[in-house]
Formats: sequence, structure tokens, C-alpha cells
Amino acid sequence: MRTVYVNGKYVPESEGVVSVFDRGFTMSDSVYEVTGVVAGKMLDFDAHMARLQRSMGELGMPRGPSPEELRKIHLKMIELNKLDEGLVYLQITRGVQDRNFELPAADTPLTIVLFTQARSVLESPQAERGIKVISLPDLRWHRSDIKTTQLLYACLAKDAAKKRGCEDAWLVRDGLVTEGSANNAFIVTGDGLVITRDLSTELLPGITRKRIVDLAASHGYRLEQRGFSIAEAKSAIEAFITSATQFVMPVVEIDAARIGDGKPGKFALALRKLYIEDTLARSGVTGARG
Amino acid sequence: MRTVYVNGKYVPESEGVVSVFDRGFTMSDSVYEVTGVVAGKMLDFDAHMARLQRSMGELGMPRGPSPEELRKIHLKMIELNKLDEGLVYLQITRGVQDRNFELPAADTPLTIVLFTQARSVLESPQAERGIKVISLPDLRWHRSDIKTTQLLYACLAKDAAKKRGCEDAWLVRDGLVTEGSANNAFIVTGDGLVITRDLSTELLPGITRKRIVDLAASHGYRLEQRGFSIAEAKSAIEAFITSATQFVMPVVEIDAARIGDGKPGKFALALRKLYIEDTLARSGVTGARG
Repeated sequence: MRTVYVNGKYVPESEGVVSVFDRGFTMSDSVYEVTGVVAGKMLDFDAHMARLQRSMGELGMPRGPSPEELRKIHLKMIELNKLDEGLVYLQITRGVQDRNFELPAADTPLTIVLFTQARSVLESPQAERGIKVISLPDLRWHRSDIKTTQLLYACLAKDAAKKRGCEDAWLVRDGLVTEGSANNAFIVTGDGLVITRDLSTELLPGITRKRIVDLAASHGYRLEQRGFSIAEAKSAIEAFITSATQFVMPVVEIDAARIGDGKPGKFALALRKLYIEDTLARSGVTGARG
Repeated sequence: MRTVYVNGKYVPESEGVVSVFDRGFTMSDSVYEVTGVVAGKMLDFDAHMARLQRSMGELGMPRGPSPEELRKIHLKMIELNKLDEGLVYLQITRGVQDRNFELPAADTPLTIVLFTQARSVLESPQAERGIKVISLPDLRWHRSDIKTTQLLYACLAKDAAKKRGCEDAWLVRDGLVTEGSANNAFIVTGDGLVITRDLSTELLPGITRKRIVDLAASHGYRLEQRGFSIAEAKSAIEAFITSATQFVMPVVEIDAARIGDGKPGKFALALRKLYIEDTLARSGVTGARG
């Protein structure tokens, strides 16, 4: 049985509970981060904590624990759960309050929850096959740049994809792809241009997305940040998604149309390799870089 | 201390907890209803349960307890909490599952939570003064017809209103008012036409909204269901909102512009009176109607 963290206590998961009056439960007044773990080391932890601070700031939440305090809790969770590979999930809510649309007093203690999930992230049979996606209208709220737990539509989108024999959905607003259900979307055009949506309030500023943008630049890829349509994606020679636990995952089919030759492409696989090597070095798994 | 209901048990509110793995907590995979209570009697209970079933159906949730079972639990909660006037809150989530965007197996038990809040609903000093609202862009997801707990934006809107000395916000999408933060919006034009937004996926089909539409028809009011802009609302002679616990609440100011003479108008007060009389009779508070 896992150990979960709830408001300062490390408890068996069966005892990991929050009040029914928690605003995370009644109002979705709540943000989260998911940090990948390989060989017991956290990947890009600082970037996740910086994004968490931003999410909380955008929502006017009171200041929570410092990144350094949160790091200690994360590390303790990895240790207690003997987590070698997988992820640490962190959720922070605006605390417990008799249900009310009005925000609680600023000194209301935040609710802080962590749990771990063990899973293979480095070795991925799926990355060798690639995934299939469908397109769906993006019906989410218009501040998807804030990582809140308002994830119902993402769940419904994933379910719709599954029912059509696919693994994920690309969400489309005003004719352009915003992102995947819980990942950023990329395509590669016939002349080798890598394209991903420019950041705005409509999509999450993915940590892995940014790393791929940076790695592409430092390794001589041509990359453009702009919107693209499903039609443009279907005419691409490659497509892929990025996320904290899927890294770079090739997309081989969009709305039943094969992308390229229907197999993971060389750009996706090369960027996946670059990302993994660079991240493992930066995270101390394979020794510090340069 | 209140008694709350969690999955078949009636417990002190300090023991009213759900798992941190509850999908209502991690994914906002969760719907709710709020039923008004006067003199210990529930108002429009059947309509609330019908809407609950619809919300669950739209989200593909497994069938929950029957309306009759839910009625028994509601009545028990009113009894245990000696609730004379206020509300009963019901929330149903898709249950407990190790966090996953994929929906859990259909036989995963739903999480069912109820609690009560005592408050004066019948006598309202605010209804005598009216409320002030601001307008804000409607940034919510595009299925606001489903009563989910994805209420963060409604909370932020209410907070923005409060910071500007107002009580609520009217949300605007594509130039037209969708609804208030947790209520439906009405205006009355200079020639006595009552207008409220027509139903769609963009707004909640309010129980009180429908009752006002029906009462207006049966009492000779002219009423039109169509979108209206903030400009049209500002030029109205009256404005009001409807909800399960506010009934009909006059709006006397929109974005700092006074509506009519800045006092609750005769249409709003007459409809409020009609609604209360009719509802109390229908709910058995003042004896069954004809």
C-alpha cells in the first residue's frame, strides 16, 4: 500500500482523505503538477514548481509552501514509496470552507496532497508504435494555461478517443489545434519545419514542450510556434505530443488519416532521444551535464 | 455540529471525508444539485432530481440511486440537522480511482455526499435593496448546461464582483449574456417584455428560471427567450436573477449603470411574490394547490 501525503502527514493511502467541504472537491478550486521520476530522481522539478507558483498566482491563491519545502516532501514521498520510476502528483486547493462561491479568508490553510504512481516511463512500447488521435472541439474553459483540476472535459475527450480505438484527442478551437487532452501537440511539415502552437491562455505551457522548443533550437532544427489546423496536421510528415510522463510520443494517425508512413517518424524519435538524454543528465540520473 | 452524508453513512461533519483519489477531487468528474428548504420542506425536489439525472446522463455516468432513494436521504438529512430553512447540497462523483484520465470501470461505486446549510431564504433584506452586478467575459467550459463542480470561474467572477463593490457577475459570450455566476439572468424592456436567454449548452437550465417562464405565461406576462447584450440590459427598465435559494432577486445596477430608478422593480417583485406563493403551495408548506 502506498503512502500518501495530506497536510503535513504521511499516511497509508486508505487514510488519505480530504473534507467534503474542501474547495478542491466542491468547487474545483485547485491546481496540480505531475513530476516524472526516473531512477528515483525527479525530472525538471524546478520548472514544475515555477509553473505551480504561476497557477496559484493567476488564481489569487495565498502563497503555499516554498519550492524547497515542496521538494523535501516530494523526495520523502519517493523514499517512502520506494519509487524508482513513475511520477509524483501534487495537488493544492484553496482549503476547507463551508461551501460558498465567495473565496475564503486569505489565512485559510491550503490543502496539500501528494501521491505517487509507479509506472514505466523511460521504456515505452507505445513510443515504438506511436499513438492514434481523434480531433474534438475544445470545449474547456478559456484559461487552460492555468493547471487546474477542472479536467472533466479532458477525461471525456480521452474516453471518446478510446471508444474510437484511439489513444488521445487533439482539441480544436476556432479551427486550430490548441493541445492534446493532457499534452502539447507538434507537427513536422514536408520541408522539415517543426510546428507547435504558440502559448496563450488557450493551452498549458508544457514543461516538456518548452524543453523540446529549446532543444530543437540548440540542435539546429527549424521550429515555428503558431497555430495549425487538423487539415495541416494531416498533411504533415510527422506528428507527436509532449508531456511530463510521455516525454515525446509519436502520433501516427489523426482522425483515421495516416501521418507519413504510419510509423513513428525520425524527428519525433530523434527529439525523444535528445530529450531523454538531456533530461536524465540534468536530473542527475546519468551524471550532471557539462 | 452538522451531520453530513457520505456513501451511506450519516456522520459528524468533521468526519465527512472523501478519498484523495476521488475523481471529484482530482478530476472534477462530479455533478451536484442544491435544493431549497422552507419550513423543513424541499422546494421543487423532483425537478432537481430530473436535472441531476440529465447531468449524469450527459457525462455517461453510471446510474445512481433513484430519485426516491435520494429523497429519503434528503429528508433524513433535514431531520438530523433540524433544518427549518436553507438548503440541501448533493454531490455525486464518478467514484474513487487511482488517478487516470480514462474513465473507471462502469461498476465503480459513485461517491455520494450531502450536507445542509441553514440560512434565511424566504425573508431577504437583499431582495428589498436589489443587487449590483458587473459583466465579465464568460470563460467557462462550453457545457454549462451540465451542473458540474467545475465552478472555479464562477468563484473568480464572484470575487471580481465583490472587489468592485458588487454582489454578482453576468457572464458574456459572443456579445450576449449567458447567465450569472450561479443563476439565470432576466431583463424587462420599457414596453414590459420580460427577456431571458434561450436554453443551449452555454447556460444552466435553471429550475427557478423555468418556473418563472411558466408563471409569466400563466399570469399574462409577455416573455421572450433570447440572448441580450449588456447594452440592452443597461437600457432595460428592470433586471433580475433567479436561483434555487435566491428565488427572484432584483438587479439594480449593471457595470455601475443604474437600472430603472435603481430600486427593485415591480416586475421582479411581483414575480418573486408569485414564485414564492406558488412554490410554497406546491411544496406543501402552505397546503397543496388546487
